[in-house]
Amino acid sequence: MSDLHDDLIVIDGLVISNWSRSVFEHMHRGGLTAANCTCCVWEGFSDTMANVARFKAWIEEHGDILTQVYTTDDIARAKREGKVGIILGWQNTSGIDDRIGYLRLFKELGVGVMQLTYNTQNLVGSGCWEGRDGGLSDFGRELIDEMNRLGIVVDLSHVGDRTSREAIEHSRQPVAFTHCCPMALKDYPRNKPDDLLKLIVEKGGFVGFATYPLFLPKGNDTTLDDCVEGLEYVVDLVGEDAVGIGTDFTQDQDRAFFDYLSHDKGSARRLIPPRPGTGAVLMPEGLRTLADYPNLTAAMEQRGWSEARIRKVMGENWLRFLRDVWGA
Amino acid sequence: MSDLHDDLIVIDGLVISNWSRSVFEHMHRGGLTAANCTCCVWEGFSDTMANVARFKAWIEEHGDILTQVYTTDDIARAKREGKVGIILGWQNTSGIDDRIGYLRLFKELGVGVMQLTYNTQNLVGSGCWEGRDGGLSDFGRELIDEMNRLGIVVDLSHVGDRTSREAIEHSRQPVAFTHCCPMALKDYPRNKPDDLLKLIVEKGGFVGFATYPLFLPKGNDTTLDDCVEGLEYVVDLVGEDAVGIGTDFTQDQDRAFFDYLSHDKGSARRLIPPRPGTGAVLMPEGLRTLADYPNLTAAMEQRGWSEARIRKVMGENWLRFLRDVWGA
Repeated sequence: MSDLHDDLIVIDGLVISNWSRSVFEHMHRGGLTAANCTCCVWEGFSDTMANVARFKAWIEEHGDILTQVYTTDDIARAKREGKVGIILGWQNTSGIDDRIGYLRLFKELGVGVMQLTYNTQNLVGSGCWEGRDGGLSDFGRELIDEMNRLGIVVDLSHVGDRTSREAIEHSRQPVAFTHCCPMALKDYPRNKPDDLLKLIVEKGGFVGFATYPLFLPKGNDTTLDDCVEGLEYVVDLVGEDAVGIGTDFTQDQDRAFFDYLSHDKGSARRLIPPRPGTGAVLMPEGLRTLADYPNLTAAMEQRGWSEARIRKVMGENWLRFLRDVWGA
Repeated sequence: MSDLHDDLIVIDGLVISNWSRSVFEHMHRGGLTAANCTCCVWEGFSDTMANVARFKAWIEEHGDILTQVYTTDDIARAKREGKVGIILGWQNTSGIDDRIGYLRLFKELGVGVMQLTYNTQNLVGSGCWEGRDGGLSDFGRELIDEMNRLGIVVDLSHVGDRTSREAIEHSRQPVAFTHCCPMALKDYPRNKPDDLLKLIVEKGGFVGFATYPLFLPKGNDTTLDDCVEGLEYVVDLVGEDAVGIGTDFTQDQDRAFFDYLSHDKGSARRLIPPRPGTGAVLMPEGLRTLADYPNLTAAMEQRGWSEARIRKVMGENWLRFLRDVWGA
């Protein structure tokens, strides 16, 4: 294995692991420069504030290996200091309850990425597991306007296709699929059709490729090479300047957590069919833990990717996109 | 004026006044037997619980003229005791936050009517002031199922037409427009097209006629006779057995309250254009206060309505419908 990985800016567009010293150490060993770390899925305002506070306590407690990211300068600093930069992010806008005025509080506290909806309809729009997507609501338009003004990334990964299209069209700033796979690789409700992938990039936006085997054709038999091949599909479709990774790492999460994710609002009807057998989703061999990012770089090298492309896809593209939205 | 009014069961499908001893005394003087009294518009779970608690304190404090209604027997008892029966009701389902499991708490506490949405999109569906109505969400279907099971009236007055149609079709129990006017009388977003009025009644449901001048062609010049004529329009359309009144009385409310109602979520963008001049909406002359219900009965008599029809429209139809949904 070459030394290239150590020199990279590595940014993961989505990590939703069972946070602990062990998880943070894996991220650190993996040479991760920064990651969008989920602190809201179904939670409302109070619980989300509690999650943000808990994250800040962790960042302080594990300050030897973690640092909080508010700006892209903070990401550069994380690289210099050899720490993992924590970008706080949401997978739902439930965290503001119904107050657009709360957005500025969370931005100031370091929440730099917010997904508009998580799987189902909320006040803003519809999700990819909703039976029908009625599109972006008027409140949703107002919310995006304020996210644009504040510089918060609009994430559309779990958003329905119609709402996604309308959000892309409405947003003055470029928006992102932080963690997704192409529908062309597997016909699955969470995956994205080519036209949306192209549209988001045409508008200056971003596609983070998910290495999550459930979204890929071979399921638990997905290899690292399959992931790089999938990345190539996206690069061929939209070019190599707007693509990165968004692994969707759920390290150390348990069944109760997946049950929470799989039910609407965490407690209503089940949305996502239970998986057969133990139901476990195994990350691709070679990428079983957050310490394994170097193997992903190596797989890119083995497929003959240029150093320039590897640098871009592993993190520099993310950095450029975040600067576009955050303004710094 | 005849003595008929004193003998009637009088039920008002919607009162949203600035509650006080004065308001309660007006209701009592007006011979009101029971009314659906709003205790949630934009509020979430905690604030709605606080509103319910406050209402119960009022009912206790003014127990000489008020009594709480849980069942239709309580309405009969209110009539016998000469008190005003308070039916707690919601104009939004924001009061459960996102927990369907909270519905049973509110039903047990006496909330017998819930409007699915208030003017805009929420988790359940869309409102009549939303730019586009995407229809009833999957969560909305689950919520209606539970409301049906518990016996809570599904109210569609401020709901969008598409969501309304789908809710009427989905609900196992009959549903209601508790307070509305026909679109045929005035082309206004809050008013209801004939086909929806007919459909809701075909399915066993109910139409409460709003005497609110903003929804009627003459605006502040609306007379009591105009209201009875409007009621006749609805009776001619759907028959005289599924029609009642839902005045939408906002007695003693101030400008801040109307501002709260007129903005999405109470604090986001303005939905309803400001009215010219002072912006005040005057109830029809003769129905300026909640003490004036006898004048409405008199206007019906003057138009030559039969006693049987007056009895039905002033309250007996409401009583029958509530029994259908509540089960008692």
